[in-house]
Parts: sequence; C-alpha cells; structure tokens
Amino acid sequence: MSNQIAVGIDLGGTNIVTALITDDGAIVGIDSHRTDSQRGAELVVNGMADAVKELLEKHSVPQDEVVGLGIGTPGPLKLSKGIIHRPANLSGWENVPICQWLQEKTELPVQFENDANAAAYAEHWVGAGKGSGDLVTLTLGTGIGAGAIIGGEILRGHFENAAEFGHTIVELDGRPCTCGQRGCLEQYASPGNIAKYAIEQIRKGSKSSLGPVLKANGAFDSQAIAEAAQAGDSLADTIWDEACRYIALACVNIQHTVNPEVLVLAGGMSKSGDFLLSRVHQHFVAQTWKIFDDAPRIVLSELGGNAGVIGAAGLAWKAHRNGTACMSYASGARSSE
Amino acid sequence: MSNQIAVGIDLGGTNIVTALITDDGAIVGIDSHRTDSQRGAELVVNGMADAVKELLEKHSVPQDEVVGLGIGTPGPLKLSKGIIHRPANLSGWENVPICQWLQEKTELPVQFENDANAAAYAEHWVGAGKGSGDLVTLTLGTGIGAGAIIGGEILRGHFENAAEFGHTIVELDGRPCTCGQRGCLEQYASPGNIAKYAIEQIRKGSKSSLGPVLKANGAFDSQAIAEAAQAGDSLADTIWDEACRYIALACVNIQHTVNPEVLVLAGGMSKSGDFLLSRVHQHFVAQTWKIFDDAPRIVLSELGGNAGVIGAAGLAWKAHRNGTACMSYASGARSSE
Repeated sequence: MSNQIAVGIDLGGTNIVTALITDDGAIVGIDSHRTDSQRGAELVVNGMADAVKELLEKHSVPQDEVVGLGIGTPGPLKLSKGIIHRPANLSGWENVPICQWLQEKTELPVQFENDANAAAYAEHWVGAGKGSGDLVTLTLGTGIGAGAIIGGEILRGHFENAAEFGHTIVELDGRPCTCGQRGCLEQYASPGNIAKYAIEQIRKGSKSSLGPVLKANGAFDSQAIAEAAQAGDSLADTIWDEACRYIALACVNIQHTVNPEVLVLAGGMSKSGDFLLSRVHQHFVAQTWKIFDDAPRIVLSELGGNAGVIGAAGLAWKAHRNGTACMSYASGARSSE
Repeated sequence: MSNQIAVGIDLGGTNIVTALITDDGAIVGIDSHRTDSQRGAELVVNGMADAVKELLEKHSVPQDEVVGLGIGTPGPLKLSKGIIHRPANLSGWENVPICQWLQEKTELPVQFENDANAAAYAEHWVGAGKGSGDLVTLTLGTGIGAGAIIGGEILRGHFENAAEFGHTIVELDGRPCTCGQRGCLEQYASPGNIAKYAIEQIRKGSKSSLGPVLKANGAFDSQAIAEAAQAGDSLADTIWDEACRYIALACVNIQHTVNPEVLVLAGGMSKSGDFLLSRVHQHFVAQTWKIFDDAPRIVLSELGGNAGVIGAAGLAWKAHRNGTACMSYASGARSSE
C-alpha cells in the first residue's frame, strides 16, 4: 500500500504542473511544462499524458501502483460530464472532453475539478485547514478563485459552479469586470487589478516610489506594491489597504453565507504573508458583527502554488478510497456528445 | 400510517403559530397565540405545550399518532444543543434550553431549526422549490432572513449560522445595521427599512402621495410603497426600484456562492407578487454575468407566512422517516449546561 501513488495535474493558462502524490499529500515528483494552448486541446492533452508517463518512469513507479489521476482546470466546466466548457485563458478551447481523452491516453481513472476547488480541497486535506470540516479558500491570483469545503465535500452547487466569490458584487454599478458584470470583488482586490490600478494612478501623476520602477520596467506586480507600502510609500499603502478592506468584506460575506471554520488566503498576494493577513484581519474585525461569535479563523495558505496539483491528486486518492474511481467519463462523454 | 401527524411550531417575536401537518405538508389544524415573551421563557414554553395539547384534542389526534414536533425560532441558536442563544426579538431570553423543556412537557421528540431555515426547508419540501435539491429562500420580512438547502439538506455551517444573506454587506461603510455592521443587505432592501427610509424622505420634504397617508396614520408599510409606485408615485417608485436592485445584487451573489437551482422570494414584500418579481428579475438580468448560464430560477414563495411552521413540522417528519427522531436534547442539554 505504501508504494501507491496518485497523479495530480494542474492545467493553467501558462503552465501545466504534473506531480506524483502520496496518500498523505507528500510530493514524490513534480514537473512543469508550457501549456501552449493555441496548438489545440488534443495536442495539449497528448502532452499531458506523455508528461505523466515520463514522471512515472523517472520515479520508477509502475502503472499498477497508480491509484488514479486527478486534474484541476480553469472553469467554467461541465464537471459531471468531464468537459471543459469555455475557459477564458485557454483560447479556442470549447467543450473539450478532457477526462475521456486523458483516460484513454493514460489508462487511469480520472477525477475532474475546477482548479480553485482542487486547491481548497488540498488545504482541507493536508494544508492550512487540515482537520477542519468546513473551509473556504480565496486564491488571490490574476483573478480571484475560490473553493468551499462543507463537511469534507466540495460545494459544487446545482450548476456545478458554486463558490465563485471572486465574482460576487461588492460595489453596485462598480468597475466593469471581464465576466460582464460590474463591481466584482476581483476588480477591487486581485493582485492583477490592484497593480493595474496603481499603474493608472502613477500615469495620471500620483507620486510614488513605484514611479521609477514603472519607468524602468514598464510594469510591476502586487508584491512590489506591498513592498513599497511597507517601506512607507503612501500611494502603495492606500491601494494595498483598499484591497485588504474589500478582501475583509468578502470574508464577512463568506462568514454569513458558508459560515466556515477556516478561511484560507492563497495566491500571489498571500506571498506578502503577515502584511496581507494582519491588514485583512484588522478590517475584518472592524466590519463584522459582534452579536454572535461565528468568525472564521483567517489564515495563510500552507501549500502555496502547489495546492491545485496536490488537491487534484487528493481527489484521486479520495475516489480510490471510496471505491468511486472508475472509467465512467469515456462512455458518459461518448453517449452525451 | 395515513393518520399520522407532525406538530410544527413557529416561534416569532409577536406570535406563536402551532400547526398539525400531514406527511405531504398539508395543514390539518393551525392556531396562533401571542408570544408575550417578557413573561419569561418558561411560561412561554408551558403555553406552547398547552397549545399543542389543545390543538391535538381539537382535531382528535391521539398522542401515539404524533410522529414528532419541530420548532423554528429566531436565531442566533446553538442548534445541536437545542438552545436559543440570545434572540433580538425575544428580549431577556438567554441560553433557553427550549428543546429539553418542550420534550419534557410534550413527551414528543423535538427537531430544532432557525426559523428562516425551516421556511427554506418547507419551500423545498412542498412549496415553490418542490423537486429541486438546491434552493435558497430570501424572506423579506422586518429584517431579511434566509435559508439554503443543498442536496436536500439545510446548510448550517461550522458555527450553525450559515445563509445569513440579510447580513451580507452590499455597501462598504454603508448604513449602520442593528447587528453592528454597516451596509447590510437588510438595510437597503427589507420592507421595514424601505418604509423607514420613505418616511424619512417625506419628512424631509419629498413630495409623494404617501405624504397624506403618513399624516393620517403616522406610518405606512412596504406594501403601501408598492401600491403608490404602481399608481405612478415617483418617490415610491424610486424607493421600490432601489430595493429591487439590491435584492437582485443579493441574487447574483447567491448565484455565485451557493449556486442554487431555485431562489425563492418570501416574506412581506413578496405579497406584492409580480411587481416584486419582475423588477428583481429585470435588475438581476442586468447585473449577472453572461459567460455561463447558471442563473437560478427566481420565484415567489408558495407557502407564504405558513412556510416556517410547515417546515418545522417537515423536519419532524424527516427525522421520523430517517429514524433520527429521539429524545436526545434532554440529556445532552443537562450534561452540557
């Protein structure tokens, strides 16, 4: 039993991460390739299957010791059909039956999940929320991904698209979002958008120590904003603080909806560690109610950028343990396509 | 079997409704008494037990045909302990072991639930969301109560206080709420608050056909606002429309969190029927994303003011069917208090 392995794949717009994961969430081997999505879905999936084969060979894991494969991908998905619907950052992909293809090419049972949900599952399984039944993860990346675990299970929702906290509206008629809505959380608090906003402000003439950085490099990221804020830059501090206020508002709304025990902050912004956590916590305490003590424990991700791939493999382990790992997508997808 | 009955109790700040409910949700008998909460919890619970006894006698239901009793009460609650914590509208009540007391006085197994959750369960069981596994109810009453059903089960959350959508923040640093937060949904969209806001506007000098009503009666309710708006009153229409925009925002946020199939609008404001539903729907379509079709079906409550008492009895039926109706609160509450 102890030699058994699950394969995790985290399919992103830029990279595909593949890893071999033990039944207690440890990484045995991990590898990353360029996604290069414009070559088409079929070639990308072929590349994934080759990467899995290589990784297993490199670590001398025979096929019969692999309990299954889990893959996390950007949404929106048709989860129960094993189909990637029309992801924003995999241009040209539409209704890709990724589970069927992966099963045929790897001959492994495949578990399929939204990447943010897979990351939430990982933090619940072996990360910052280990031992807690109810958890929500906010992944502050380019956009804001989120996943909710309730009683140890991923909250999927009727349309399999629950826990999209990044697209909850925090400002009525607010900033336009790429999703078509206005005022989405991710417009006010994602690293990508706060960097964009800071750059706009500097171009409009705001004084900041980031001005020369912008001039030299043409851009900067949210971590540069955090560093400038910590060094006393006033514009950077205002922008960072504003983002933390909106993240805190989202935490209050998560408290009053899913009511989790643990709320994990992950993604690029969480690399700023306590400078993120303490600001969010301070604004959370100021904003939340005092009539009932049901505040979640707000913590930083423990698994960082590997949460997605670990969670994907974790779902393969879960299916294996529950005896629900089967080759069902192939026939399901065939009959429904 | 067909003669069996469950008892439902809906404990409100003003009235206590008691009903006998069949296994398909039909009301056999129903009665209402004043709550009069200031006489103290023990006397109120004695009165409840007497009311149950009277109702059973009136309808000639022998005790051994009663499968159990369910009670819905205002929160916050310690649900699994059967204790009412410190409800805003039952002044002086604190840590009342209502389930233990009710069991001892009625000799029936007792199921306990937040009143808004009980109402949501009823709409799922035999109301507007019958046949749907995933449903959220927004009860637009004095405040805004809410309940979520996921896969046929009530979403309780780790602290047993989930789905408090009325206290999700819709305006950062917005209007102060009785809960201590600022900008809660119920400050912008509950019937009580929109009537209060309309009265303020008229007192400040805004012209409205509701001016003479206010002068004559000293007050008016949200239904008067809806009627004035429909008759062409401009102030009333602006205020009604604004409330509907915020309710629509909440519907978008419910879509992106719980992702339910059905979203039920209930409570006082839903008495305005299509004038509520069409406005909310129009603003919902304007606000929600277009990238994925996961919009819930937004409908009006079918059970109205009886949803709470029907849902409470429905939970007694559920426990009876599942074999989980037992007398556990008594010993549990004793040992933990």
